Amino acid sequence: MTSKRVSRHSKGHRPIGVFDSGLGGLTVVREIRRRLPHETIVYYGDVARLPYGTKSPEQILRFSIQNTLFLLKHKVKALVIACNSSTSAAANFLRRHFNVPIVDVVQPAAEVACRSTRSGRIGVIATSATIGSRVYEKALKKRNPKVKVFGEACPLFVPLVEEGWLEGKITHDVLDAYLRKLKKKKIDVLILGCTHYPLLKKSIQKVMGSRVRLVDSMAPTVQQLAQLFDRRDLHAAKKQKGLLKIYVSDKPGNFVKVGESFLGEKMNFVEVVRQK
Amino acid sequence: MTSKRVSRHSKGHRPIGVFDSGLGGLTVVREIRRRLPHETIVYYGDVARLPYGTKSPEQILRFSIQNTLFLLKHKVKALVIACNSSTSAAANFLRRHFNVPIVDVVQPAAEVACRSTRSGRIGVIATSATIGSRVYEKALKKRNPKVKVFGEACPLFVPLVEEGWLEGKITHDVLDAYLRKLKKKKIDVLILGCTHYPLLKKSIQKVMGSRVRLVDSMAPTVQQLAQLFDRRDLHAAKKQKGLLKIYVSDKPGNFVKVGESFLGEKMNFVEVVRQK
Repeated sequence: MTSKRVSRHSKGHRPIGVFDSGLGGLTVVREIRRRLPHETIVYYGDVARLPYGTKSPEQILRFSIQNTLFLLKHKVKALVIACNSSTSAAANFLRRHFNVPIVDVVQPAAEVACRSTRSGRIGVIATSATIGSRVYEKALKKRNPKVKVFGEACPLFVPLVEEGWLEGKITHDVLDAYLRKLKKKKIDVLILGCTHYPLLKKSIQKVMGSRVRLVDSMAPTVQQLAQLFDRRDLHAAKKQKGLLKIYVSDKPGNFVKVGESFLGEKMNFVEVVRQK
Repeated sequence: MTSKRVSRHSKGHRPIGVFDSGLGGLTVVREIRRRLPHETIVYYGDVARLPYGTKSPEQILRFSIQNTLFLLKHKVKALVIACNSSTSAAANFLRRHFNVPIVDVVQPAAEVACRSTRSGRIGVIATSATIGSRVYEKALKKRNPKVKVFGEACPLFVPLVEEGWLEGKITHDVLDAYLRKLKKKKIDVLILGCTHYPLLKKSIQKVMGSRVRLVDSMAPTVQQLAQLFDRRDLHAAKKQKGLLKIYVSDKPGNFVKVGESFLGEKMNFVEVVRQK
């Protein structure tokens, strides 16, 4: 096979598939759009069945398989699991059984956290499903067995974000109630282990103090995606205009408000796909 | 047909079917157990896809139809829609298309509220789906066109209850943020239009003050159910020991804690039924 022929058959023009339990994963899409503007993205948000983070690993795995099958129909060249709960319950399974390169949101953030810590004491805040799975702890200790990891499930953070209460006294008090224990652990890095949490970054920083570095998954995930495209020659051509197609399993009343707050731009293409 | 023959063919021994988006409907089950201890109950909680209250009417209708079909397989003699969001989106459809007597949680509470108000000013707190549907307003005005109805969606109440934060300063502040507007409306009755809310009753009463009467659906719904059984000769025999079978679409980590707080007794029979 000549290199020309390989190039002609490159999958670069194909879309990137991204899925999440709802709209939180659009924070990752926002970063893909910024860093890789020529890429076309097909997003699937399982709004009808959100949230995942309070549900069992078996259930999250089932949902994640369905989401993956939907995106594969769109002939995606790579899959981004833009949901920490799905990553924790399904990333291994999906990698084993589906023939598509997969980038998740846990490994990239763990990588950055390990590089950033000086004290070796790292905090993780996430949904109950993600914390229960110890997925971050495993990812961090694989890189550095000496780090100490302190996890805290924060079930009210997602509803707070969905409600748009990103700042203010009540939000501060709720955050403080969950973060109080972590503050005593003398961590110097805190991983925001849920794609909703970047919207609370300012308030979390205020509660944790300026000496704790907050690490979210957005930038490191897109960095890994770009590196994957480098290695496998999967970048879209520079002349290609990156489109964004958003598919969701439901479109509730506050859909546009919430979605655009995550995405940071208008949602022009949105289609509701009813699953069984 | 002799009356004896009718009696032999009575459906009284059959179970009552109850469904909800999750475990909140167990507050209604608790009241059925108390008032009608000989009745066997089959409960279906759609824990995998909860909450319903933030989702679209179309989606809630789809879920509600599936839940109903599941319960009909158990040959239920009556169906209780123990979820206000489902009632608002699906009660009319289910009554029209299924051949089973249906009791919902909206009509009974509306009846009590109309009887209780003196000022004719009634407040309703519920999920976004229920408030958006104006189902209480319609039910109240049907009974008394002169009442003034003030609705307020309270999306954070369900997560608060699921988290077990039923009292305390943060809960008080969150409640106050949502109820502040209603307090200015000079209502004398407030309908708790979500089966989760009875667990917040004490805190809501504190915020609203003692002059506002809180009406929840539990007792009035079971009263309507008992009246239905009177009319149609559907009561279980007194010698029958009432069983409670709980089916759920998922069983997450905090399942037992949350479920038993709603039910007020141990959950002895629980089975997970995976829907597609």
